[in-house]
Amino acid sequence: MARELDELLKQSSEWLRGTGPLSEIVLSSRIRLARNLERLPFIVRSTRASMQEVLDTVKSAVSKVVTLKRAFWFDMSALTEVDRQFLVERHLISREQAGSPEHRAVVLSQSEAISVMVNEEDHLRIQVLQSGLNLRDAWTLGDTLDDELSELLPFAYSTDLGYLTCCPTNTGTGMRASVMLHLPSLVMTKQINKVLHTITKLGLAARGFYGEGTEASGNFFQISNQVTLGRNEEELIENIERILKQVIEYEQGARASLMANNRTQLEDRVWRALGILRHARTISSQETLDLLSAVRLGVDLGLMNGLDRSAVNELFLFSQPSHLQKLEGKNLSAKDRDVVRAELIRQKLGIQGKDGKGK
Amino acid sequence: MARELDELLKQSSEWLRGTGPLSEIVLSSRIRLARNLERLPFIVRSTRASMQEVLDTVKSAVSKVVTLKRAFWFDMSALTEVDRQFLVERHLISREQAGSPEHRAVVLSQSEAISVMVNEEDHLRIQVLQSGLNLRDAWTLGDTLDDELSELLPFAYSTDLGYLTCCPTNTGTGMRASVMLHLPSLVMTKQINKVLHTITKLGLAARGFYGEGTEASGNFFQISNQVTLGRNEEELIENIERILKQVIEYEQGARASLMANNRTQLEDRVWRALGILRHARTISSQETLDLLSAVRLGVDLGLMNGLDRSAVNELFLFSQPSHLQKLEGKNLSAKDRDVVRAELIRQKLGIQGKDGKGK
Repeated sequence: MARELDELLKQSSEWLRGTGPLSEIVLSSRIRLARNLERLPFIVRSTRASMQEVLDTVKSAVSKVVTLKRAFWFDMSALTEVDRQFLVERHLISREQAGSPEHRAVVLSQSEAISVMVNEEDHLRIQVLQSGLNLRDAWTLGDTLDDELSELLPFAYSTDLGYLTCCPTNTGTGMRASVMLHLPSLVMTKQINKVLHTITKLGLAARGFYGEGTEASGNFFQISNQVTLGRNEEELIENIERILKQVIEYEQGARASLMANNRTQLEDRVWRALGILRHARTISSQETLDLLSAVRLGVDLGLMNGLDRSAVNELFLFSQPSHLQKLEGKNLSAKDRDVVRAELIRQKLGIQGKDGKGK
Repeated sequence: MARELDELLKQSSEWLRGTGPLSEIVLSSRIRLARNLERLPFIVRSTRASMQEVLDTVKSAVSKVVTLKRAFWFDMSALTEVDRQFLVERHLISREQAGSPEHRAVVLSQSEAISVMVNEEDHLRIQVLQSGLNLRDAWTLGDTLDDELSELLPFAYSTDLGYLTCCPTNTGTGMRASVMLHLPSLVMTKQINKVLHTITKLGLAARGFYGEGTEASGNFFQISNQVTLGRNEEELIENIERILKQVIEYEQGARASLMANNRTQLEDRVWRALGILRHARTISSQETLDLLSAVRLGVDLGLMNGLDRSAVNELFLFSQPSHLQKLEGKNLSAKDRDVVRAELIRQKLGIQGKDGKGK
């Protein structure tokens, strides 16, 4: 199992590839579909036997689906805790899926664009990730996969309500469309709370870097639809896209305003962030995210031409605890991770001079 | 006048040369002698005419003194405000002398080891600066100059009280012996207040970077004797040296303890300071002092072998407001100084790679 995960270690996650439309503000777009098998109890009422039956049924179907032809199947309980956290850090499984591995699994396409969690809150959570603002392609791919799977699996569906889900907030389309936004300028100019408040009033939810219940880190905000019922998928996507366009315009406006009116302070901020990253000897993952966020803004605004943009993007991921431990090939205490993280960052963002690297 | 000051601009100040005994902790040693002319009123009771008489009398004497053969005479009122501040920054005149230039002057030896303020609080303030812990040499030189001057100038002296001074706290020897200490480890380990408290109880005074009434900046502390009466100069120097040796031992102990028990945190701190200095686009002189203090500690502890030690020492001086303005050859607003300061620092501590310098 670990060998296939080690392959992932060599690549940047889809959501951090830094390509795709508007990728200087929108890291990634995600479509998630919640599906359950007919006649088997929802997870909250499940038994070990029923969960095992879901696993067996889904595994068998997955092996026949064209879109998942080369996908990996990982039983959660066969993975180490570090490996499970590694998948959380890549946004391929939820923290809940990692936390209770028994009778749970995930299907991953090689590119990481598709992941299907089995026996998370619902029997199936089909997730499609695309770089940049690209909910349409994500939906097209998710819809295709959903069609393929539904030919093999009897999904719980009501003609009145749509897809039936464990939590009623997901009933209907079972779809959640979400985007990960990088909004450093709205944070710097203190407009972010107003923007998030407006988003919430318009029926969208704003969450942190690692989804529900997490804090906004590194100025990343995950925006998603709350409503899944009463409209079809295209309408839901259209609605979120319309609002997103405005948020993106606000962030672009804030960036332009900072460049026009506070350029020195802005340059100072992004270069100092780079200076700390290049020189620190111990650094937490939280501080790393915050500083990388500033550096990314600097790169996006063309203030740091010499810097390797992909190195910055990669570090968002590879500086995370489990990525670090997999890179090092061993478990590390939090204290040791902070030292190894600082070393990795110096290596990746290093200066070619003798003083920049190591001691 | 300005031309001679421009010569000074090319050299590092005596107190920042970074040479002399124990110079990793003791920046400089200073002996100051307060002297007044007989029959002329103290400055607090002076008239313009009496101040002018002091100036004329002293100027005439100075021109005949061997030790001051190549010294410069600067009338304060002939210098611009930036030039006067420049001399304050080099610790050659007091802020008071710079603030009220009328009928005031300073005599400077070429090496800056000797400065004689005329019509400051007393008619003469003879000051001798030496790099490192070197009060003895400073005293020997000051004593020689005092002897030479006293042959030409009738100093106010009482056989009961010794030298008479404007403020009674200086009466007696008229001598203040002081040293500038760099005590970053006592600050980091939070022992500094206890040490300063003990120093005060032992009859010494602790002041900030720019003398009386200034805050400790960059972990620099100026320690001097309070008592000038009742003991001779050698006894006063012996007393301050004895106490200083203990303070130095405490700082050395704190450095050793940080190296043994908190090496990672220590390295992190000094390297981050360097990282910020190397990357900032705008920086205040206060922050510069604090960060340079950390970098200097790193250099002193051998943690930053590639770094140019003299560049670090010079920056303490050349990053100051008036030094910056003289380097630039024009007056600058505080905001512009912060930008120019950051540029100078990047240049001096710069990295040879393309990303380190400029944009």
